Amino acid sequence: MITGKNYIGQELSALGETTFKTFNPVLNIENKTEFVEASPEEIDKAVTLAASAYMPYNQKSGAEKAAFLNAIADEILALDDLLIETYCSESGLPEGRAQGERGRTVGQLRAFADLVAEGSWVDATIDTADPNRTPAPKPDLRKMLVPLGPVVIFGASNFPLAFSTAGGDTAAALAAGCPVIVKSHPLHAGTGELVASAIAKAAKATDMPNGVFSNLNSSDIEVGVQLVQHPQIKAVGFTGSLKGGRALYDLAAQRDEPIPVFAEMGSVNPVIFLPEALQNNGAKWAKTYAGSITMGSGQFCTNPGLLFGIKGKELTDFIQQLSDEILKVEPSCMLHPNIIGAYEKNKQTALNQSGLMVAAEHEGDVALNFARQTVTVVQGKTFLENGKLHQEVFGPFSMIVECENTAQLQTIIANLEGQLTGTIISDGEELSQYPQVIANLQTRVGRIIFNGAPTGVEVCPAMQHGGPYPASTDSRFTAVGTQSIKRWVRPFSFQDWPEGLLPNELKRENPLKINRLVNGIVTKTTV
Amino acid sequence: MITGKNYIGQELSALGETTFKTFNPVLNIENKTEFVEASPEEIDKAVTLAASAYMPYNQKSGAEKAAFLNAIADEILALDDLLIETYCSESGLPEGRAQGERGRTVGQLRAFADLVAEGSWVDATIDTADPNRTPAPKPDLRKMLVPLGPVVIFGASNFPLAFSTAGGDTAAALAAGCPVIVKSHPLHAGTGELVASAIAKAAKATDMPNGVFSNLNSSDIEVGVQLVQHPQIKAVGFTGSLKGGRALYDLAAQRDEPIPVFAEMGSVNPVIFLPEALQNNGAKWAKTYAGSITMGSGQFCTNPGLLFGIKGKELTDFIQQLSDEILKVEPSCMLHPNIIGAYEKNKQTALNQSGLMVAAEHEGDVALNFARQTVTVVQGKTFLENGKLHQEVFGPFSMIVECENTAQLQTIIANLEGQLTGTIISDGEELSQYPQVIANLQTRVGRIIFNGAPTGVEVCPAMQHGGPYPASTDSRFTAVGTQSIKRWVRPFSFQDWPEGLLPNELKRENPLKINRLVNGIVTKTTV
Repeated sequence: MITGKNYIGQELSALGETTFKTFNPVLNIENKTEFVEASPEEIDKAVTLAASAYMPYNQKSGAEKAAFLNAIADEILALDDLLIETYCSESGLPEGRAQGERGRTVGQLRAFADLVAEGSWVDATIDTADPNRTPAPKPDLRKMLVPLGPVVIFGASNFPLAFSTAGGDTAAALAAGCPVIVKSHPLHAGTGELVASAIAKAAKATDMPNGVFSNLNSSDIEVGVQLVQHPQIKAVGFTGSLKGGRALYDLAAQRDEPIPVFAEMGSVNPVIFLPEALQNNGAKWAKTYAGSITMGSGQFCTNPGLLFGIKGKELTDFIQQLSDEILKVEPSCMLHPNIIGAYEKNKQTALNQSGLMVAAEHEGDVALNFARQTVTVVQGKTFLENGKLHQEVFGPFSMIVECENTAQLQTIIANLEGQLTGTIISDGEELSQYPQVIANLQTRVGRIIFNGAPTGVEVCPAMQHGGPYPASTDSRFTAVGTQSIKRWVRPFSFQDWPEGLLPNELKRENPLKINRLVNGIVTKTTV
Repeated sequence: MITGKNYIGQELSALGETTFKTFNPVLNIENKTEFVEASPEEIDKAVTLAASAYMPYNQKSGAEKAAFLNAIADEILALDDLLIETYCSESGLPEGRAQGERGRTVGQLRAFADLVAEGSWVDATIDTADPNRTPAPKPDLRKMLVPLGPVVIFGASNFPLAFSTAGGDTAAALAAGCPVIVKSHPLHAGTGELVASAIAKAAKATDMPNGVFSNLNSSDIEVGVQLVQHPQIKAVGFTGSLKGGRALYDLAAQRDEPIPVFAEMGSVNPVIFLPEALQNNGAKWAKTYAGSITMGSGQFCTNPGLLFGIKGKELTDFIQQLSDEILKVEPSCMLHPNIIGAYEKNKQTALNQSGLMVAAEHEGDVALNFARQTVTVVQGKTFLENGKLHQEVFGPFSMIVECENTAQLQTIIANLEGQLTGTIISDGEELSQYPQVIANLQTRVGRIIFNGAPTGVEVCPAMQHGGPYPASTDSRFTAVGTQSIKRWVRPFSFQDWPEGLLPNELKRENPLKINRLVNGIVTKTTV
């Protein structure tokens, strides 16, 4: 059932000459299917088809788009065990995680289906005419959000379902009315093809224009580069490394017509442990954070890689408690030999920095491709002076920074790079003594957490997933939750436009019964 | 009362060595004041001061920010005749225009004051906790929009008040909570300084932190380049030429931390005249468009520079009617000898293109710096094949394209660059014969107009001013109307955050009585 071919709209195609295979890191063997990279001609064909699908797809109603999204969810579920087995064999992640992620993926698709079926998300705004106004009559103006055009989505290595082929970015873009071309992630190309087949089936069953979705294989950067540079591509979504995201951003910015790139990149997710909290509940927090640091082998963008405390007995005890707890965790398999290779290399680079000490590192035997979790300690001054210690080590690694005092903590926080999240662990009244630390942290992150862990990203309207650069290329949008649809649209105004030609969202009678801002008041009534 | 100095927060400063003067194009003489360009030290001081003002300004309530914005409006009005006289002497624009633009500027400031005093603009979104949810408890999440940080605004040459020192961009950024540094436009540096003095006075009177606003003089690009490259600047607003806007965009994209640039650049604002409309009302439309093309000497970004019709008697008659009407208009003064110089040069470049014919050009004597309005005609095929004919000629210039048939019109529209506006002039049922022309036009513009003219941009919530590149660098935002506040903010989430430390917008009791999305429902009630 997995062919190794590309989906160019409804057509399976394999004209390219480069092939590659995916890898099972648990068994440490290559998987069987040979995937064929998309050729330049296939890339151009997919984009041209997407461009031709743009207008007919855009003209589908919200209800029709919702039916398409729900059909994708149904078809993904229909893939059943084959999808779960392929997922596990290409990621080394356990079955429970695969099932959970499938649930989240299907849930996201249905949430976007509900959003567009209801329809108010287009922010319809109507200001009616006043022909008698002086000195000039006031025209009738009606505004709504419209899709940007064909977009390219780069799947994430660490979420083979929820942030890949039919993940959050794809669901949001399809919901917005943008045809999508997925640059399939080479680590899970089989999972990608299966999900692509589900999307293709759903598109056919719900009568969507051919080209509304394509899935292109690629093991290297060429396919992505050609896609981002194609003049008919209007936006890009990406989840991955800072290096990869920045490269795409630069390509997009250098086009004749620059286009937006929504890249969700690295983050070390700083956590500040205040003394009273450590004194009262150090053991509890050590257990929670040992779990958070090693969850999914540390392969989450919200992994807590940087822990701050103020020097003293409470922090010394906590370092011991966390070290004890983290050594109790069973090591787990990383996604790919290259990923664990990068983990070992980046960890070593950090450990080579003067002043960084290992507090705990798993020392027993581990299977091939399993990561040894590691907790390190460094002094505040050393951390402040060495930018290399601020870099993410993707994997089950965390660094505890011992700050001399509140002033040093405050300075360090002010000098952090942009992050997805920031967390404060605090007890009783102590938080009120750190207003400037909190204020500084707020300027550096997209989400701030009290007495919790950054891992476990809730999918809901109030979630912000995205932060100041380099956490994201565009902190003004979220990558999680239905608000992420706003990345793929632009406002469009109709002035004195004939009623009969207006889209339903803006017609006088409000046939879709959506919320609209009419002359400054939110209402569902007729104009 | 005009000193020629820079405002670094509340301080007048003139440490630079380069000076320049503004020019009265009507009298064709330099104005008296010598303006001193900001030095690198002054630029850095202004940005550092803005960065230090960011947090205290951000902590001001909506009501306090509204008082500041209203005070700016009051202080601008208090400048009275001096402001109007300075405006006219630096722009060549008539007194009535100056007064109208002052009214619009004051109206914009008050509209933003109302917006932030009311407070719902922050899009407060609350999803409450569910500690009993399985498998994991649901956290409490609360999201709102927060300001990006210090921003730089580049004033527009053609709107010395409404899109300059205290214009729409500045008003929107201050309303959002961002300290603003204005790179003053050299053509109206005196007007700029007067308005800056009004802002400084208002800031002092309403107890705003020093550095919330600075105004820097500059006659060339260095000041702007240094500002955009400064690491503490977080966004840029610009209204002007494609060349200037793209240069700033490129600088911002090449920073270590790329920042958004909202550049509103050129547009030729295509207008399609359908045959029946021309047959029935050609004379009326000729009169309307002669007025629109020459309004403000053609110095509006919504000036209709490109008119399309389908070959036939109606179009031939219309070309004659428009030619007759445009010659009846009295020529008017352009903003500066450099602007009329560019107009003459760009017009000549267009006229040098093979196949472009002059239909009408003012031929009588004109005063120095007054522009001769010009209407030209070209065949569809010629237009399609020569990209130079697609370029804006900033000034009272328009080009009529005679299309062979509907198919050619459709192709031409599909191949236009991005535009601020597109207009259809149509009568009776004929519009229904052009679905693809309309669909193509919609993909190329930000606002579509029926039986009107693109000039005259209404300031209201349903207005979209901004279109696909190169009309704007970011079509996802408007530059006109209160929605433009969205350019200067990012969403920020609080997870399980203590009630006492939440901003008022997100507190349980909803003390500001704003609209909030609570568990999916828009409400003003308590949580």
